[in-house]
Amino acid sequence: MPSYTAPVRDMQFILHELLKIDRYQDVLSGFAEATPDTIAAILEGAAQISQEVLQPLNRVGDREGCRLENGKIITPTGFKEAYAAVIEGGWTGLIGDPEYGGQGLPYVLGLAVSEMMASANMAFTMYPGLTSGAMEAIEIGGTDQQKALYLPKMISGQWTGTMNLTEPHCGTDLGLLRTKAEPQSDGSYRVTGTKIFISAGEHDLAENIIHLVLARIPGGPDGVKGISLFIVPKFLVNPDGSLGDRNAVSCGSIEEKMGIHGNATCVMNYDGAVGYLIGEAHKGLRTMFIMMNAARLGVAVQGLSQAEVAYQNAVAYCKDRLQGRALAGAKYPDKPADPIIVHPDIRRMLMTVKVFQEGARALAYWAGLQVDIIRKHPDPETRRKAEDVLGLLTPVMKAYFTDTGFTAANLCLQCFGGHGYIAEWGMEQFVRDARIAQIYEGANGIQALDLVGRKLPANKGRAIQLFFALVGGFCEKYEDNAALSPFIRPLTEALERLVEATQWLMQHAISNPDNGGAVSTDYLYMMALVTLGYQWAQVARICENQLSNPDDDSFDRQFYRNKLVAAQFFMEKVLPETMAHLAKIQAGADSLMALSAEAF
Amino acid sequence: MPSYTAPVRDMQFILHELLKIDRYQDVLSGFAEATPDTIAAILEGAAQISQEVLQPLNRVGDREGCRLENGKIITPTGFKEAYAAVIEGGWTGLIGDPEYGGQGLPYVLGLAVSEMMASANMAFTMYPGLTSGAMEAIEIGGTDQQKALYLPKMISGQWTGTMNLTEPHCGTDLGLLRTKAEPQSDGSYRVTGTKIFISAGEHDLAENIIHLVLARIPGGPDGVKGISLFIVPKFLVNPDGSLGDRNAVSCGSIEEKMGIHGNATCVMNYDGAVGYLIGEAHKGLRTMFIMMNAARLGVAVQGLSQAEVAYQNAVAYCKDRLQGRALAGAKYPDKPADPIIVHPDIRRMLMTVKVFQEGARALAYWAGLQVDIIRKHPDPETRRKAEDVLGLLTPVMKAYFTDTGFTAANLCLQCFGGHGYIAEWGMEQFVRDARIAQIYEGANGIQALDLVGRKLPANKGRAIQLFFALVGGFCEKYEDNAALSPFIRPLTEALERLVEATQWLMQHAISNPDNGGAVSTDYLYMMALVTLGYQWAQVARICENQLSNPDDDSFDRQFYRNKLVAAQFFMEKVLPETMAHLAKIQAGADSLMALSAEAF
Repeated sequence: MPSYTAPVRDMQFILHELLKIDRYQDVLSGFAEATPDTIAAILEGAAQISQEVLQPLNRVGDREGCRLENGKIITPTGFKEAYAAVIEGGWTGLIGDPEYGGQGLPYVLGLAVSEMMASANMAFTMYPGLTSGAMEAIEIGGTDQQKALYLPKMISGQWTGTMNLTEPHCGTDLGLLRTKAEPQSDGSYRVTGTKIFISAGEHDLAENIIHLVLARIPGGPDGVKGISLFIVPKFLVNPDGSLGDRNAVSCGSIEEKMGIHGNATCVMNYDGAVGYLIGEAHKGLRTMFIMMNAARLGVAVQGLSQAEVAYQNAVAYCKDRLQGRALAGAKYPDKPADPIIVHPDIRRMLMTVKVFQEGARALAYWAGLQVDIIRKHPDPETRRKAEDVLGLLTPVMKAYFTDTGFTAANLCLQCFGGHGYIAEWGMEQFVRDARIAQIYEGANGIQALDLVGRKLPANKGRAIQLFFALVGGFCEKYEDNAALSPFIRPLTEALERLVEATQWLMQHAISNPDNGGAVSTDYLYMMALVTLGYQWAQVARICENQLSNPDDDSFDRQFYRNKLVAAQFFMEKVLPETMAHLAKIQAGADSLMALSAEAF
Repeated sequence: MPSYTAPVRDMQFILHELLKIDRYQDVLSGFAEATPDTIAAILEGAAQISQEVLQPLNRVGDREGCRLENGKIITPTGFKEAYAAVIEGGWTGLIGDPEYGGQGLPYVLGLAVSEMMASANMAFTMYPGLTSGAMEAIEIGGTDQQKALYLPKMISGQWTGTMNLTEPHCGTDLGLLRTKAEPQSDGSYRVTGTKIFISAGEHDLAENIIHLVLARIPGGPDGVKGISLFIVPKFLVNPDGSLGDRNAVSCGSIEEKMGIHGNATCVMNYDGAVGYLIGEAHKGLRTMFIMMNAARLGVAVQGLSQAEVAYQNAVAYCKDRLQGRALAGAKYPDKPADPIIVHPDIRRMLMTVKVFQEGARALAYWAGLQVDIIRKHPDPETRRKAEDVLGLLTPVMKAYFTDTGFTAANLCLQCFGGHGYIAEWGMEQFVRDARIAQIYEGANGIQALDLVGRKLPANKGRAIQLFFALVGGFCEKYEDNAALSPFIRPLTEALERLVEATQWLMQHAISNPDNGGAVSTDYLYMMALVTLGYQWAQVARICENQLSNPDDDSFDRQFYRNKLVAAQFFMEKVLPETMAHLAKIQAGADSLMALSAEAF
């Protein structure tokens, strides 16, 4: 059976040493409260509930799945009690607005907590995760009255939330959406239509579910410009917050899926359900997309989370499993064989995952801090820059972290040999669970299009120029530092390749839009690699700095040395992939577009 | 529900136009019988049984799995009837030795048939597949009497076979094997021990199962030099071939696995079971490894098979699913949206899979032809060369085809968006089924070690020199051909990189054996890419040749043109990966081996 230990030390390193979040104590609200002691207590508390409550239910959820009986969904054994423990611990309100009962702590801290919970039990964590998304939409687009009515009980976890976008014939292309919302004389709407793939659409964990639903108000514009966003509660809510009638929304069936069996993926039928417009009519996608950007960061962290837990279990197995001898001679001659962690190819797999998840964690938390800055920083210029770079990197993180999270879980499965394929070891569940993250919240190909088609050209390339200045400035600053040269030199080269790819795009994507689409995924990967390289180079700088203090003989010296090895591995064994991506980009779209559809 | 149509046209192209197997009509036995008409009839017949009998059972097998009841295994609904149809059609004896009732047809033709069956139903196909492996061991190591006793009924499919290597504590490292075989006065042995992961170890498809079991004869040498191979029939066989007593071998339990649910993966208990030594005592691994080399080619084809069937279904979905508009403007303005096959990133995924499976098919069938040459060619030098190159490329194909087959099935799932994650579409089964092939018959990391540690240095590098001469000679021959230049130039560059990587290995792996292990997988991938590039360059040459004939206005012109586009895609969008692999190789083992085991 797999286990999970939250990587608290690495999280602390990122928050305090890499991001130095104490810099923001006097600048960002909630950061003063996030003292090192508070952070330590929160991380330990989240680790405890993740390890002791959520992780033991991960396999239960996979085995039992959810059942639909008489329109009600029964979640797997233990999920109800675990959810009660999560809200009892205040975890659903950690970063919530204090005005509505939240603790108002930094978003970046909430991200660390959500990583732990997702590592422990991804399917379970989606119930509160979807609530966060729904809350955010209400925060962005809701009236004060709507906020006051819904947010407190969602923050407390008493109610959960969902997002309803997809319909059977329309996933990515929301312009095809048909669900309609007919205005009523009392200002409400009647929502009718079918939504599919609704995670946590129905369940027995909470007393009410607040559905956020995209629908068309008849007479509005066609396509994406006529879509509005509605609040459709499972139970109508009286003005005093008490529950009223059951609304005409129901779960028609649940999907049998490859993974995340513990989370109910519902077909939701809206049969003239009472709904309340949120934000402006026909402008629903605007709110939805703001919220989805944050959700995409959350999904990126899910990718990382499955890599982390799979890695831990693979490491334990590789230290334990005796098979063969080290190539340079037996390491443990007294044992019948050496543990397989002595084998270089096993280490190649483990190191590949290690540098991914540690680097991705650093980047994800940096991104989380940008969310705090965007939401709370007093200086508009600082907020704008954070928004630019975060907007640029959100699709990159979503796609790269989930693709690589899946690959990483697979590498970890591979370390187990035949046992990895056997259900009881739990490794194959990580792979199946991780797989969804490459698809939902916008399939990864859509992320690449978002990057190349929208984020890159926006504001005449302001965001990418800022990014180049950031990474390039760092490289220049340390280019003469001999100790850092093994990190700065490859990063500089990779950045040059990315600049070259960007120039290629600028020259070729306008004349032939297919060129942009054809190279978008390669470009996204290049940017991901450069960005992770930048994280590792910063990590290396900090560690070199710490180790250069000869008086410090603390236990942590080994921690810093290990980080330097990991950074070296990233530069030598991962970053060279930028070469192949550049070459593929420069080949353009011709060989992709030449075949007729029939020729496939 | 997924469907499957055997790619007969591509198979014909490879057999007749690329491999020109009619060259061997007078040289290799069985090839005279394999006339174009016979080949066409066999391919059509195999396509029919695969499409109509095996494919409809693929999902049934996945859903139902196998059940163990009172020591007996019940295979999924329909498997028994399907197996009866397979043996009735003579498919188990297609390439079998005519002396024992086989049809003696070319091995390469059998490979094409096995690809179809595996595409249609991988779990089912493993039952006859394992029999082929067991038969081969008997053919290699058995006495005439053993051959006469067992082969006819295995060729006819009346009996099946298994291979028993793995024990709970010993998978890759067979030196740790404990199962013992005690000699009896009648020349037989009593075999005692537990074997795990035994595919098709018990089932209800055939009246007898011939287990091939690795065990130690007490008093023999320790480690791998004291392992012998035994025939252990489920029912003892009387000298006249009739069934005798039930032997003391039984299935203790079956594994719950990620995929291939239709195939029973058994824990086999041998409790003093009667066994018969096959080949020399203590030399059992030799026979086992000869057989495993052929089995590895079969597993490579499994990787390809899942890519093919996943591809077909992804293509159908992408032509059907309407979502969004082509980047350069609507292609089907009369429809509510364009089919997603217009999108370059969708095409990137489909083309990646297409060039993999078509290229891999060409290479696999070439390898199948080498097996025929090795077994049947009168000239020892020709046999020796075939053996050298096939030995070199077998681990390459096993690892690369199964890794890429899995990745390919995943890309095809991705084309379905959310629907790909839903069980009823069948795409996620291809992914789960394909996953095992990366592990069994030697995990892919072991294939890489076999390549770098054994095949490369064997006979002072004779095989790799032959390989370089083969590919290099081809490049030189056509280097001045302008029409072929888009194919020859990138292949030449990739070959140069591979030569460079080989030189690096020669210089660095002896001084530090960890260097060999550290770069083995990257080296294997480079070799796979160059070898597939060589296949595609040959395909391009043939197609250019056909198209340069202005009088030919046959329907097939489009086939050749499409192949040229695919070859271009491979050169531009796949082969550049050799750059990254070379850079990673040249970084050596340092960053992999620096960490202590505790630091992971």
